Amino acid sequence: MDRTAPVGVFDSGVGGLTVAREIMRQIPNERIVYFGDTARVPYGSKSKETIIRYSRQIIRFLRTQDVKAIVIACNTASAYALETVAAESDIPVIGVINAGARTAAAVTRNGKIGVIGTLGTVDSGIYKKVIQDIRPELEVTQKACPLFVPLVEEGLLHDSVTDEIASRYLSDLKSKYIDTLVLGCTHYPLLRSTLRRLMGEDVTLVNPAYETAIELKHLLEEHDMLRMEESGADKENREKYQFFVSDLAERFTTFASSILPNEVRTTKKINIEKY
Amino acid sequence: MDRTAPVGVFDSGVGGLTVAREIMRQIPNERIVYFGDTARVPYGSKSKETIIRYSRQIIRFLRTQDVKAIVIACNTASAYALETVAAESDIPVIGVINAGARTAAAVTRNGKIGVIGTLGTVDSGIYKKVIQDIRPELEVTQKACPLFVPLVEEGLLHDSVTDEIASRYLSDLKSKYIDTLVLGCTHYPLLRSTLRRLMGEDVTLVNPAYETAIELKHLLEEHDMLRMEESGADKENREKYQFFVSDLAERFTTFASSILPNEVRTTKKINIEKY
Repeated sequence: MDRTAPVGVFDSGVGGLTVAREIMRQIPNERIVYFGDTARVPYGSKSKETIIRYSRQIIRFLRTQDVKAIVIACNTASAYALETVAAESDIPVIGVINAGARTAAAVTRNGKIGVIGTLGTVDSGIYKKVIQDIRPELEVTQKACPLFVPLVEEGLLHDSVTDEIASRYLSDLKSKYIDTLVLGCTHYPLLRSTLRRLMGEDVTLVNPAYETAIELKHLLEEHDMLRMEESGADKENREKYQFFVSDLAERFTTFASSILPNEVRTTKKINIEKY
Repeated sequence: MDRTAPVGVFDSGVGGLTVAREIMRQIPNERIVYFGDTARVPYGSKSKETIIRYSRQIIRFLRTQDVKAIVIACNTASAYALETVAAESDIPVIGVINAGARTAAAVTRNGKIGVIGTLGTVDSGIYKKVIQDIRPELEVTQKACPLFVPLVEEGLLHDSVTDEIASRYLSDLKSKYIDTLVLGCTHYPLLRSTLRRLMGEDVTLVNPAYETAIELKHLLEEHDMLRMEESGADKENREKYQFFVSDLAERFTTFASSILPNEVRTTKKINIEKY
């Protein structure tokens, strides 16, 4: 396997960019090919069967870009499709759930963990299952927050309506005295300051995007696939970070530029249904 | 053409059921085959090219059900795809926009009309264009309301958060002194009481679902395709109303039963990408 090959990262849309951002920070030499399935977003309200079909199509596309490993940067797709597609693949495929669940199980002091996510992630019960596989005695309370994604995409990151909705969603979790909260959807780190304020300083917020970037780094080290310094030729000949979407490339580019450290110059639109 | 054949009705998801409901009320003898594209919802944030591709697939599916006419019960698809797919079709295809626009142009007294819809419908400018084709002197103000669909689907039809969001979205329109408001998304009639209260009694709310059912009735009469009384054999042998979706049939059935006059017993899931 070519260690200079890029890492493939995919999500239903823009949310997975919070994962790509952490990979850029933690292992800055790695090249990334990102795919956002903007024509079929959101995944959170779709069935397992559909999510597996979509994930297979996306992985077939990413393989055409000669990726050396794949990160499913979407909680719903990690919940529903990771096991199936990882078993079918001859390159490593990781999701965002295992690293987040492991961290939550390690940092809780009182044994009470909260998980927030989309309907799909919460219905799957995956965080609860993975956390209790590690430490069966932990109490895990889940809460679906279906309005958070539209609120983030509407730009209402700091707004009284978002506060009100968040306050309703979090009240169950607060009444359980959780001391650890897993942000189980890739959009949610963008609501971090609201969640921090409502939950208080004593609750640890676990961001699976951050933990997944660390897991990817260790995985590449273990397989001796970590990319060393960029070569001059690289810099000249190809884009280090490439972005592909299934629809509306311009809107994606604008959002991506607003949350990534460097400007996203071009996003290519492809017909994902052909893969 | 067989006048006992059903009418095909499609939408990106559940919203078009408000149109199906009006058809059931206005022309109760007609059979309906409804398709909701629940695997690819929402359409409001997707491109014209994508919406045309999806609409063609759905029409190919509806033709397998021997429909005699097709209603595009989705504003975004009507805006982006109606002209293209109607030109390709040898059976009548109508959308929800023309009837709503004609009514708005006819009922306004002060010549100031507001239109609310998804990003896609508003970006297309279609209501404004159609209204001003009829009466060029009319002033049309559009406003995208991207949070209304998630709020309706979360069941917050009567809620302080919905009031607050609606109040923000409508403030521009109120400051223009519109006397007519077009509900340019099929979900919005479910927010009718909130919109009525915020806009006041002097503003006429135009529901394109209602106007479209009337247009369909006239169209079928003109072509001598209106269905007469149901036959006894009909009642026994086939379902009068049939529902198909591309994903999560159970969730659809629950929502459909909550807004249609009769219980929806079964919804069939099909793979729309095969058409």
